[in-house]
Amino acid sequence: MLTGDLRGRGTDIVVTREPGGTPLGRRLREAFLETEETVAPIAELLLFAADRAQHVELLIKPALAEGRTVISDRYADATFAYQGAGRGFETETVNSVIELATGGLKPDLTLFFDVTVERAIERMSTRDGQGVAKNRMDDETAEFYADVRKAYLGIAEREPERFKVIDANGSIEVTHAKMMEIINAFLARNS
Amino acid sequence: MLTGDLRGRGTDIVVTREPGGTPLGRRLREAFLETEETVAPIAELLLFAADRAQHVELLIKPALAEGRTVISDRYADATFAYQGAGRGFETETVNSVIELATGGLKPDLTLFFDVTVERAIERMSTRDGQGVAKNRMDDETAEFYADVRKAYLGIAEREPERFKVIDANGSIEVTHAKMMEIINAFLARNS
Repeated sequence: MLTGDLRGRGTDIVVTREPGGTPLGRRLREAFLETEETVAPIAELLLFAADRAQHVELLIKPALAEGRTVISDRYADATFAYQGAGRGFETETVNSVIELATGGLKPDLTLFFDVTVERAIERMSTRDGQGVAKNRMDDETAEFYADVRKAYLGIAEREPERFKVIDANGSIEVTHAKMMEIINAFLARNS
Repeated sequence: MLTGDLRGRGTDIVVTREPGGTPLGRRLREAFLETEETVAPIAELLLFAADRAQHVELLIKPALAEGRTVISDRYADATFAYQGAGRGFETETVNSVIELATGGLKPDLTLFFDVTVERAIERMSTRDGQGVAKNRMDDETAEFYADVRKAYLGIAEREPERFKVIDANGSIEVTHAKMMEIINAFLARNS
């Protein structure tokens, strides 16, 4: 819905995601999600970093250099939240790996769609009906997701200009309207 | 030949390799070697680190905890040489990534089979005939391999007790005999 709106206004957009935004990244994503062995937390941290480094170097930086707008479903904040708070790595360790992978490249605007942990678990459990299979990251405890959410909300406190929290407990339409308010305010400030 | 000799003496050995020592690692190795896109050097560094972290946590540490001897075809020195010297990353960066992946775990003994760059390139070019396909890492320039070799020889200077250089320009049998001298001296010192 966001890309539809923006393209309608003539914005040249690249839509991508992490993990899996590049051909190599898609293979790494599959390997991670499909392997039957336990994945060591430190291996998970480094694997997502490898995917991100490839994504930044081969897709994001070239697109930005061409003047295009990049919309990515997840980026470094996800590692900060999932591997930092969720897996319990030290902030300094996580930040140094993120710095290596991104070379310091940050989004101009980050949207966090916030739902309660109960709502999140409920939505994940019905994903199958929408043709989206549950995956490795969907199998954690409620406590894990609560820690991850808290880490995201902490980013919003530290970087309120860049990182916007959107209440996403309501319908898709209501959430979309809230998001477009933020997008429009951002575009008004930056054009 | 080494494992045959050691097993003949009753040593309980795990033979493994990097990249690809675990099921996840084998998929990462394939992804890296088979992808048709360019792999960003920083993505390469992080990907090998992810493979190594999984290898250390799921295979090497558990085997050592059981009192077994682990022989790995490549380990962290390969990253120091290939990504550090070959790709030109700063020593500090490479070492911090190695430290993350290994948690500081080092081999008791490392064997470096040293050949001239000319001999190495000649041997790689005849690998096909031995059923071993050339791969992404075999496609570098002579200068790249010379830098990599120099980095390995530098480790030998800094850590002469751990890191042993074996002249491998001769036949397999001669090289094997030189290696067994080092192995036997090591075992005599450590038993």
